[in-house]
Amino acid sequence: MPILEKARELALIHSSAAVIGWDQETYLPPEAAAYRASQLSWLSARAHELATSEQLQRDLEQAEADDEGADATHTANLRELRRSFDRSRRIPVELVARESTATSLAKHAWAEARKRSDFTSFAPHLQTLLGIAREKADLWGYDGEPYDALLECYERGTSTAAVAALFDELRPTLRETAAAAVEKSAARPVHLPDGPYPIERQQKLNQLIAAGIGFNFNAGRIDTTTHPFCTTLGPRDVRLTTRYDESDFTSSLFGVLHEAGHGLYELGLPASDFGLPSGSALSLGIHESQSRLWENHVGRSRAFWNHWYPAAIEAFPQLASLPLDDFLAYLWRANYSTIRVEADEATYDLHILLRFDIERRMLRGELPVADVPAAWNEGFRDLFGFTPPRDSEGCLQDIHWSMGGLGYFATYSLGNLNAAQLFTAARQDPAIADACDRADYAPLLAWLRRNIHAQGATIDPPALIRQATGEPPSPHAYLGHLKSRYVL
Amino acid sequence: MPILEKARELALIHSSAAVIGWDQETYLPPEAAAYRASQLSWLSARAHELATSEQLQRDLEQAEADDEGADATHTANLRELRRSFDRSRRIPVELVARESTATSLAKHAWAEARKRSDFTSFAPHLQTLLGIAREKADLWGYDGEPYDALLECYERGTSTAAVAALFDELRPTLRETAAAAVEKSAARPVHLPDGPYPIERQQKLNQLIAAGIGFNFNAGRIDTTTHPFCTTLGPRDVRLTTRYDESDFTSSLFGVLHEAGHGLYELGLPASDFGLPSGSALSLGIHESQSRLWENHVGRSRAFWNHWYPAAIEAFPQLASLPLDDFLAYLWRANYSTIRVEADEATYDLHILLRFDIERRMLRGELPVADVPAAWNEGFRDLFGFTPPRDSEGCLQDIHWSMGGLGYFATYSLGNLNAAQLFTAARQDPAIADACDRADYAPLLAWLRRNIHAQGATIDPPALIRQATGEPPSPHAYLGHLKSRYVL
Repeated sequence: MPILEKARELALIHSSAAVIGWDQETYLPPEAAAYRASQLSWLSARAHELATSEQLQRDLEQAEADDEGADATHTANLRELRRSFDRSRRIPVELVARESTATSLAKHAWAEARKRSDFTSFAPHLQTLLGIAREKADLWGYDGEPYDALLECYERGTSTAAVAALFDELRPTLRETAAAAVEKSAARPVHLPDGPYPIERQQKLNQLIAAGIGFNFNAGRIDTTTHPFCTTLGPRDVRLTTRYDESDFTSSLFGVLHEAGHGLYELGLPASDFGLPSGSALSLGIHESQSRLWENHVGRSRAFWNHWYPAAIEAFPQLASLPLDDFLAYLWRANYSTIRVEADEATYDLHILLRFDIERRMLRGELPVADVPAAWNEGFRDLFGFTPPRDSEGCLQDIHWSMGGLGYFATYSLGNLNAAQLFTAARQDPAIADACDRADYAPLLAWLRRNIHAQGATIDPPALIRQATGEPPSPHAYLGHLKSRYVL
Repeated sequence: MPILEKARELALIHSSAAVIGWDQETYLPPEAAAYRASQLSWLSARAHELATSEQLQRDLEQAEADDEGADATHTANLRELRRSFDRSRRIPVELVARESTATSLAKHAWAEARKRSDFTSFAPHLQTLLGIAREKADLWGYDGEPYDALLECYERGTSTAAVAALFDELRPTLRETAAAAVEKSAARPVHLPDGPYPIERQQKLNQLIAAGIGFNFNAGRIDTTTHPFCTTLGPRDVRLTTRYDESDFTSSLFGVLHEAGHGLYELGLPASDFGLPSGSALSLGIHESQSRLWENHVGRSRAFWNHWYPAAIEAFPQLASLPLDDFLAYLWRANYSTIRVEADEATYDLHILLRFDIERRMLRGELPVADVPAAWNEGFRDLFGFTPPRDSEGCLQDIHWSMGGLGYFATYSLGNLNAAQLFTAARQDPAIADACDRADYAPLLAWLRRNIHAQGATIDPPALIRQATGEPPSPHAYLGHLKSRYVL
């Protein structure tokens, strides 16, 4: 059918760009950067052309007219293709170009501003990007508030009000839990034995463990990059990356567990539907639920290390001097950081609550750009109990706004909530719980494959969570998890 | 100018495919192969579409009409774009598709036939591909014989008769030189000290030496593949590959020197003209001249190893027991092999003479496909003095015919002839000769940059050789080189 062929062709273009983008991050010689950007931009232009073409529109209309509803997946695919087509077509080329210019200027300005901790030099760029974000929100339309329209890009079918309600429920307990975790951790300082933890041995152990939780190295790889990521180069080709710290092997390992969680999701999608909604990942909040589940619920659990600690000691003999309990205390250490990307599990979501609130108020027009630093510091003090020493460690720390990424941060915490809710639901099955307690994760992976991966993107995230767990999205499982790991 | 923009866009598509093809050979997970093929085929279809489009034709006509000849490079670019456009347009899409199907069947049939040394099962495929090659030759047209039209794909502006004349001059002396070299080598058997030669140390030495001859690792890399190659991913991005034999470090090293020769050429082309004829490599015979020059004339020379042997000994201490003279004798060993890809410098071209003769007769219709094995064995005996024990080591050994690659082999020997002629001409400058004798190759590279690389593809190969060396293409320098290295 022409519309499905075009959807698959779009995936061919996007995945080709993913190959080229992967190489850019892993193996690109320094002088090759400029031309590489032009290759990616050519592919991106072809994808945009196809995604917004009159012919695609006619094919979609024809398919909709022909659909008699006999095949529910097909009907769902048409509905989702319509949704994304309509969204793409609402944004004029002129606005895409304007945003591209604005972000390219803003990224430079942000990097400079952060270096000098000078918010005022970044403010005009943020003002421009905020304006563009509101223009887009108006073009897409929304029922509640502008943030809704942006959130829809990342977490479709999820309202800002629903997120706010979850976060409001999360906030007070999270703040208490975090404070208790930081206190408990300070009372029992524990350090890894001195390195070096040789990179080659880290690579071997990471590979062993990633394969152990079910990552298929015949359909993927791990390479090295400055910023770890997971990218899909084809239905059977998922590339993970990590970075190495010779003084702490857990840094690369938990990076790999996180990215492997994303990768297991991608490899669990129906490969024959690659490029169709039924073969696509659903949302960032669902994606992040998979990475956080494997990273934190599996990877930081006692059962996991009961099984893997001997292999870690074999790889790094100096660990023999560190009892397992101390190693676990090391994995569960908590501390307040001004910097989100350095935050631990117990304090991470405080950073997200802050950003969600600031972005939402900016988009509503309630928080002028000039007042962002003050609002940030006030919000931060309220959550963490102290103020960041300077804006470079406050409102200037993240690159996202300079890339036009408003409406995005919330999905990190939605991922954490979803991960806990899914893990708890899966463990309702005693066979899964027993296996997890023996560090056998095949039954857990099978449950995720069935309940999450195989579902593709033909259902909204809140409905998927309800379908998989029997409950609407809620912070209860997550708070329970944090309490039992960090407070009790 | 629209026509130049389209030429550059074509280069964007081809080089994007090169990135994807490079990844396919270096890092592709096994299960990813099928989808990867569809990504490459999408890009290839886009390139074909653009290269043969009516719009491109109109743009070219417009540019030709507008050209007043004030800029010689521009005029030459238009002439070359016209040449390649006219050639592309002469081959109907139907024939391209038919050839693609035929080669895909033939490659499987060839692999099976070689395994069982069963020429008759491959013969019908060769018959089909020969038919297609003759169809293409007829569509392109030729003055002398069908081989001319095919050779033009690889070595434009070079007639079959001219190649035959060079090869006729080469043959008798080459046969004698090869025989003498094999005899001399047998009289002084020499072996490398036992391995292992650890791969990591091979990699470091290769990198050191490649950088030493001028390969820029800020604009390129070396990775590992089953079959070594050099590919261009952008004007400042040239990737070399090699393979490692832990019992013989010279295998990967000479692979790297060969591919680095190709890479130095690619990186020496005018980068600002990437995608235009004036920024493109000229022909296979010129490309191979660069790889063979660095591999054989530089890399197998005494001066080179006077300089680099201490570094090799440092990397592989067991070499300390092997005097430099013995190491050189090892590099200069010669032996008859039935297999072309295992042949040494002294005997390699015998394989090419044989294939050139067989292909030419097939294309003229003078040699029926069924008679190829007998003709092969007879020709082989005439050149090597013995007969291959079976067709799998004879006419079935190479993959090229099964890929439709008729008219291609000759360029390997043209490369050898060109390499010797260029190296000899460059050494006419005493400063270059002196520097080479001290293993300082910067002046030689500068000469190649100026006389070969900077010239791009706006002149025919025989004219380029004449312009660079003052003489028409000739086998004299090459025969002189072989005699002095292998006989004297």
